[in-house]
Amino acid sequence: MKFTVCAAKPEDCKDIERMIRELGVYEKMPDQVTISHKELERDGFGPDAFYQCLVAEVPEEHKSKDGHTKVGYALFFYTYSTWKGRALYMEDLYVMPEYRGKGIGKALMATVAKVGKEKQCVRLQFAVLDWNKPSLDFYLAKGAEDLTVNEGWHFFRFQGEALDNLVQEAP
Amino acid sequence: MKFTVCAAKPEDCKDIERMIRELGVYEKMPDQVTISHKELERDGFGPDAFYQCLVAEVPEEHKSKDGHTKVGYALFFYTYSTWKGRALYMEDLYVMPEYRGKGIGKALMATVAKVGKEKQCVRLQFAVLDWNKPSLDFYLAKGAEDLTVNEGWHFFRFQGEALDNLVQEAP
Repeated sequence: MKFTVCAAKPEDCKDIERMIRELGVYEKMPDQVTISHKELERDGFGPDAFYQCLVAEVPEEHKSKDGHTKVGYALFFYTYSTWKGRALYMEDLYVMPEYRGKGIGKALMATVAKVGKEKQCVRLQFAVLDWNKPSLDFYLAKGAEDLTVNEGWHFFRFQGEALDNLVQEAP
Repeated sequence: MKFTVCAAKPEDCKDIERMIRELGVYEKMPDQVTISHKELERDGFGPDAFYQCLVAEVPEEHKSKDGHTKVGYALFFYTYSTWKGRALYMEDLYVMPEYRGKGIGKALMATVAKVGKEKQCVRLQFAVLDWNKPSLDFYLAKGAEDLTVNEGWHFFRFQGEALDNLVQEAP
C-alpha cells in the first residue's frame, strides 16, 4: 500500500488527537489522556515548539472504515545526553490497527532517526510497556537496547501536588 | 552553608564537564562519558539550545578541597507528554559528595520545577538506577512516582550501528 510520511501541520492536530486517544486505549490508560487538539496546535509549531510530529497518510482510496486517511504518527523532540551529547526522544509511535504490518511504523521511526541524524543526534530513546510484547519484539529486532533490563534505569515522575510542593521549595 | 543556584553560563562548562565525569564514576559507567566542555558550550546556549543547566555555587571560603566553588548542577530540557502536554526532563542532578545533606540538591531540583511551572509544564521526569538507594529514597520521599514499577515502562535506546541502520530505512 502506498503511503507518505510528512511533517505534521497545525490542521493535522485533530487527527493526531484522535490517534493519541486510540493509543491511550491500546496502552490501557485511556483516562490519562486529557490533551486537546488546541493544545497540540499551540505547542507543536513556531520557534518555541515543544515537539515535532510526523504523520503517515494513505491515498483516499485506502481510507479507513471510519473515513480517515491520516493513519499513523510519530511525535518526538530533541533531548540531551550529558555522556554523549545531542539526542532524540520519541514520545509516541502509532499506526492504526488496520494499517499495521505494511512498513508504516518502520518508515515513521526511520524518518525520526533521519531528522535526528541531520542534527548530529547520536541516540534515539523511547519507552515501552513491559507487557507490550509486539512492540518489544519490534524494537529489539531492530537493534534497540532495553536499558531498564541491561543497566537498571527506572522512570520517575513528579506531577500534581508533588510537583507543586517541589516548586514551593525553590530558593 | 550559603550557596546560590544560577543559570549556567558558557564559562561554567568546564566545571559542568568535571561534575558530569564525577557523576559517571558514581553511576559506575565512567567509560560512557565522552562529552567535552566544547560540546556543552555549543549545545546549551542560544536560540537552538538542546538543554538548560543550573549551577550551585558556594562562597570562596567554602571551596572544595580541590579548590572548586561550583559544587552541583541540574541539567534539563523541555519535553512533551501526548497525554498531559508540556513537561520537563531532568537528565542529571548532581552535588559533590562533600556538599551533600545541605539542601543543595533539593534547591537545584526545586528550581528546575519552578522554571517548568513558569512554562506551564505539568510533569517533571527523570531516570534513576535501581541500585541507587540514596537517590531512590530522596525522590520517593519528595513524592515522585516510580513509573517502571507502577506502570511497567522500560527505557529503550537506539544508538551506534542500530541507529545508522534505522536511518537507512527512511523512505
